[in-house]
Amino acid sequence: MIPLPRQYTPLEGTLDLTALPFTGPPAIAELLAELGFPVAGEWIADNTFGEEAYWLRADQSGLKVRGRLSGLRWAVQTLRSGTASAWQSCEIHDAPRYSWRGSLLDVARWHLPIEFLHRYVDLMALHKLNRLHLHLTDDQGWRFEVKRYPRLTTVGGFRRESMRGHYYNFAFDGTPHGGFYTQHELKNLVAYAKRRGVEIMPEIDLPGHTQAAIAAYPQIGFENVEVSTMWGIHDQVLNTKDATVEFIKHVLDEVVEVFPFEYVHLGGDEVRSLQWQHSPAAQARADSVGDLLGWWIGTLATHLASHGRKTAVWDELLDADPPEGLLFFGWRDVTRAPAARAAGYDAVSCPHEHCYFDWSEGFRPGEPTAINGFVPLERVYRFEPGEVTGVQGQLWTEYLPTPALVEYRAFPRLAALAEVGWSQAPKDFAGFKDRLRAHLSLLDSLNVNYRPVD
Amino acid sequence: MIPLPRQYTPLEGTLDLTALPFTGPPAIAELLAELGFPVAGEWIADNTFGEEAYWLRADQSGLKVRGRLSGLRWAVQTLRSGTASAWQSCEIHDAPRYSWRGSLLDVARWHLPIEFLHRYVDLMALHKLNRLHLHLTDDQGWRFEVKRYPRLTTVGGFRRESMRGHYYNFAFDGTPHGGFYTQHELKNLVAYAKRRGVEIMPEIDLPGHTQAAIAAYPQIGFENVEVSTMWGIHDQVLNTKDATVEFIKHVLDEVVEVFPFEYVHLGGDEVRSLQWQHSPAAQARADSVGDLLGWWIGTLATHLASHGRKTAVWDELLDADPPEGLLFFGWRDVTRAPAARAAGYDAVSCPHEHCYFDWSEGFRPGEPTAINGFVPLERVYRFEPGEVTGVQGQLWTEYLPTPALVEYRAFPRLAALAEVGWSQAPKDFAGFKDRLRAHLSLLDSLNVNYRPVD
Repeated sequence: MIPLPRQYTPLEGTLDLTALPFTGPPAIAELLAELGFPVAGEWIADNTFGEEAYWLRADQSGLKVRGRLSGLRWAVQTLRSGTASAWQSCEIHDAPRYSWRGSLLDVARWHLPIEFLHRYVDLMALHKLNRLHLHLTDDQGWRFEVKRYPRLTTVGGFRRESMRGHYYNFAFDGTPHGGFYTQHELKNLVAYAKRRGVEIMPEIDLPGHTQAAIAAYPQIGFENVEVSTMWGIHDQVLNTKDATVEFIKHVLDEVVEVFPFEYVHLGGDEVRSLQWQHSPAAQARADSVGDLLGWWIGTLATHLASHGRKTAVWDELLDADPPEGLLFFGWRDVTRAPAARAAGYDAVSCPHEHCYFDWSEGFRPGEPTAINGFVPLERVYRFEPGEVTGVQGQLWTEYLPTPALVEYRAFPRLAALAEVGWSQAPKDFAGFKDRLRAHLSLLDSLNVNYRPVD
Repeated sequence: MIPLPRQYTPLEGTLDLTALPFTGPPAIAELLAELGFPVAGEWIADNTFGEEAYWLRADQSGLKVRGRLSGLRWAVQTLRSGTASAWQSCEIHDAPRYSWRGSLLDVARWHLPIEFLHRYVDLMALHKLNRLHLHLTDDQGWRFEVKRYPRLTTVGGFRRESMRGHYYNFAFDGTPHGGFYTQHELKNLVAYAKRRGVEIMPEIDLPGHTQAAIAAYPQIGFENVEVSTMWGIHDQVLNTKDATVEFIKHVLDEVVEVFPFEYVHLGGDEVRSLQWQHSPAAQARADSVGDLLGWWIGTLATHLASHGRKTAVWDELLDADPPEGLLFFGWRDVTRAPAARAAGYDAVSCPHEHCYFDWSEGFRPGEPTAINGFVPLERVYRFEPGEVTGVQGQLWTEYLPTPALVEYRAFPRLAALAEVGWSQAPKDFAGFKDRLRAHLSLLDSLNVNYRPVD
């Protein structure tokens, strides 16, 4: 069983879960129906439980599950890990270690089909991951429909061509690529995810990583550009004119309408703009690039607060005199999220060395091109995040143009991270690998294109 | 013995090479003296031999060596691989497979001490490598003194700070770095190398990779910039004004004075300039970025030809309607150099997958940060270049700030590449590893910081 429950006690015999009558909250009945998972039993919503915690007992007298609705949803996923018609009798007390167990999916570098996002949410839920961080905009594509600024997607959603092979090869495929998600599609995705206990945090990356937006609306940047056809860190940044600030506020007004989650992620990473350094307007705003970054995030965080929303950012902001109440994502190394926590912020840990699943897992012959190497399964499993708000696995997609490749990079590493985020048991990699065998059979039954274990 | 001679016949007994009188060309006497290697024998310059070929016989009657001077020099290096006072009697017929056996050293990303360049040339010669490709200029530093344009080094040779850890970490060290080589220093290096049979090809990378030059002389670029503090592909490019062309010609006039080698490398890689696309002046020169690149190289190749020099370029130029007579360096993959050969050009093969020694050799704990992974020793050894002018190992130094790290990445992979370039024997990796043990003892005696073999 992955992730490992807090307490699992096997009992004598097995039980046919499919043969039982169902009583319980309609939300659970709907979820079971939507999953095509005909288990039943007595499901009791019980708000004396903590968030996401549940208790489950399957024995000769039947199946009983208790917990808040958020916990009952995870009990459903626990039951998917066994054979419904011959469930091992057992008793489980379960609750997560961390409240944020996330997965970042970059749909900006390649536009992934909306149907795949549904499937991906489903696979996250199976692993009791509860936060999808959807990276919607970047230099190479803008995927979020903004009704007030249609060129963001009609122009910014499409690029002339893409890099072929690794960035270091400096070769191009000559093939246009693009696409975007309508607000309607995304609202459906949000609802679908919510039914599974997964919240979606949108990311609108700014003031860097905005070349696609600037290609669509040059007045918000410094020069005429095209939607980028290259990977790597780019020089383009938003200018600091009042009209640009207003433009971005209008964009965020539509973002919060589509995504009800309490956080909006504003990026703030990888900014070191020469353009700002030479811009009198930017110099009038702040003394340094760092301060300017802080000014941008502070201004927009205030705007989001007027919508009742909070702001998430990458760890660079910690050096930029950050406003209160930000949620930090510590990506550059294992120390960043704890440092943000020490400075009084909530912080999710997603450092390269344990959590960058776009990095190669190993070096078998025929291994697909990866941005860098390597993050083997064991290193993910052995990640010890410490006192943070949670953990998150990152799937940047420069080298993952297809759903099949996303799944290859995600699994089984995301299963290991799910266990890091959920379980408090002492690390036992051999035991994990044992349990992984059964888990991979479950993934096989769902046709997941996971990477075979070395 | 690495690289493996074409034909090696062991004979009975050993010989004390240090006890013999010396007769032969003064150049060889000087080389032996300069190496502090007191072997002697009868050395006969014989121009009936091919370039770089030699014959050597050490037996009870003494040591005899024949060949052109270029071959006698390699015989000296062959003798260094044994114990001079107890040399195994033998007969050797030897000649290289390829005429170009190169090593690229990037002194632009980090300024390496001139003393280390002397040592590095020495280590190249030990491996019978005969071409040092010196990458002197890039976005992060300009290292070649140009008397007419002193700011190229006084400004362009220094940067405010450098990246700390991997590029992907987006962290900076806050420490200025810089330096350059005077023409006097470089002329000394050229002479030192020539005495060892090593020619130095300078590279002035343009029209991209010129941010340091543009920082020094903004009139040759499109905007005000600083010497770059970041790794990765940059947007800055030379503008196409007549005055800029003249500027570069003046630079090349000084380059050819310092470097007598027949080739000057002009780069031409990784250009995809948005600035050109929006520049009326550039559009007046050519229709496309590719054509503009061809125009630049054609113009400067003509200028170099007026000095009696030929032009070398990276493989991108093959798509840019290249002028005749270029020497191509095929870096993006194994097909590039053969493609250039098929198009009628000379071409050196230095593809990522076999020849990028800045890539990680393996993943031991504590392995230093590398730009990417991985190029293991065996993959270097098994490189089959085909019908090309030669092979070359690449040491880009973004992640190699010190001589010790350069040596760690260079060796023993450069030894494997030396064998690829020199030897025609069938591949036998187990045999190579056997011979490598003795070779590493030789490197030990020279305090080379090679990476231990896995």
